[in-house]
Amino acid sequence: MDNYLKKYNIDLETIKKHISEASVKKKIIDDRLPETYTKDVLDEYSNFAEEKMGIKFNDITLFITALTHRSFVNEHKKFIVEHNERLEFLGDAILELVVSDFLYQNFHEPEGIMTAWRSALVRTESIGAASEKIGYISLIRLSKGEKLGSSRTHASIIADCFEAVTGAIYLDQGFDAAKDFIYQHIICKMDEVILSESWRDAKSYLQELAQKFEGSTPQYHVIKEEGPDHDRIFTINVVVAGHNRGTGIGHSKQEAQSAAAAEGIKYYKKQSTDQSLVTGKLSLIK
Amino acid sequence: MDNYLKKYNIDLETIKKHISEASVKKKIIDDRLPETYTKDVLDEYSNFAEEKMGIKFNDITLFITALTHRSFVNEHKKFIVEHNERLEFLGDAILELVVSDFLYQNFHEPEGIMTAWRSALVRTESIGAASEKIGYISLIRLSKGEKLGSSRTHASIIADCFEAVTGAIYLDQGFDAAKDFIYQHIICKMDEVILSESWRDAKSYLQELAQKFEGSTPQYHVIKEEGPDHDRIFTINVVVAGHNRGTGIGHSKQEAQSAAAAEGIKYYKKQSTDQSLVTGKLSLIK
Repeated sequence: MDNYLKKYNIDLETIKKHISEASVKKKIIDDRLPETYTKDVLDEYSNFAEEKMGIKFNDITLFITALTHRSFVNEHKKFIVEHNERLEFLGDAILELVVSDFLYQNFHEPEGIMTAWRSALVRTESIGAASEKIGYISLIRLSKGEKLGSSRTHASIIADCFEAVTGAIYLDQGFDAAKDFIYQHIICKMDEVILSESWRDAKSYLQELAQKFEGSTPQYHVIKEEGPDHDRIFTINVVVAGHNRGTGIGHSKQEAQSAAAAEGIKYYKKQSTDQSLVTGKLSLIK
Repeated sequence: MDNYLKKYNIDLETIKKHISEASVKKKIIDDRLPETYTKDVLDEYSNFAEEKMGIKFNDITLFITALTHRSFVNEHKKFIVEHNERLEFLGDAILELVVSDFLYQNFHEPEGIMTAWRSALVRTESIGAASEKIGYISLIRLSKGEKLGSSRTHASIIADCFEAVTGAIYLDQGFDAAKDFIYQHIICKMDEVILSESWRDAKSYLQELAQKFEGSTPQYHVIKEEGPDHDRIFTINVVVAGHNRGTGIGHSKQEAQSAAAAEGIKYYKKQSTDQSLVTGKLSLIK
């Protein structure tokens, strides 16, 4: 890492100085001690990782952090407890690359289909199921309140843990070990995804995004119909809150709608990267 | 790659059989030949990559594909021409991981802030600017129509090329070479991102400043709406404590509000600089 910083003349100290100067929040001096773990706890997590995952962590606290939900931190204020969101940020990117690389290297489908496959492979349900199968659910550290939460919240907490664990493996064991973990638990589901057609769900995914970002439902409009009856081609626009968000072409209305929805999904994903649609998350931090 | 497939018992042939069985579209037999390139063209791209990017591609056609927009393909139907969207799919994931890894390893900020920093580093404008600086814009292959397109379309085509070129470097030269490329052209901008505050969500940042300086919350008012439904343009004022502090124009309310907020931020920053000159304080915005 340091080599890259030096090679490209990236002066971390200056950047950190500028970050601190630009900070609106007042610096709070936190004089609490970092969390410590009993030998029993360390052993419990180490044994699990070794026996169930075949991974001997050099720093087992990374694995514990990966399984620590934000709500646990709020209930344990005597120590500085780190939760898993930073590891999840990292793990998500590793998951995305390993899956993208697998799809690119092995298939020749257009980008839109690969994106749909990738979404199906890494969606909450898929990675949550992987977490359940590995079996560390009982090791996840949550607040008492969260333990009683809805199954929907639960699903997303469990899925986030998978990404955080991926991040912990990457940091502790390197990229190839993380890649192994993803092949073993996610990529091996590729055939299931294809057979179940779960990747085709572009329209409902777009509906979720449109609801989330614009509070509106997508409308599909046929704008062109051509070709003979047995080989008709449809062109369809998807409109959200008065804006065209995608155009799709297909041999059936359904297919054209899905293609339009896939474009719409790309739009919202791009939007959420470009502008900080992280707004929600950001304001939580303030 | 094959090792991973074998190790985790991922049977590509079966998966491909299932993909083909599940396909809605009819298979079209494409008997066109793949595109061929004259020596002049190959040399032009090779020389550029070597001289301007310091990269000697083993397969220069990857670089040509990375600079081929979908619209070019539609105008050249005699051959099978590949466009850059699959490479962009791959390159986007590499960019995301390299930037996430850099942020995680070097900073200790919460996930929300790292996500905002990452968005600012990889947003359309940032990676488009990198493309322009490297200088391959004139090598991008577009349709004649696209060449005359709006500057907005242009910006996104140029940004997509950066991701596709990243993908091409990764495939041809390996992960570390792609990482080099991203450090050289994107991560080196980290200090600029921090200093310009471009990573902040303008609306929530303005809200903090308005609270701090006026004890009041910004209000957004649409003052003009024009243009046809599919190309509507909004003009929005942001008002704090009865004073107009900024005006923004955009294709959506969200976009216009952000632009207005950005003007408001400038106003308060200027105020705090002016006041600090008077009071001798370094800066009120801490």
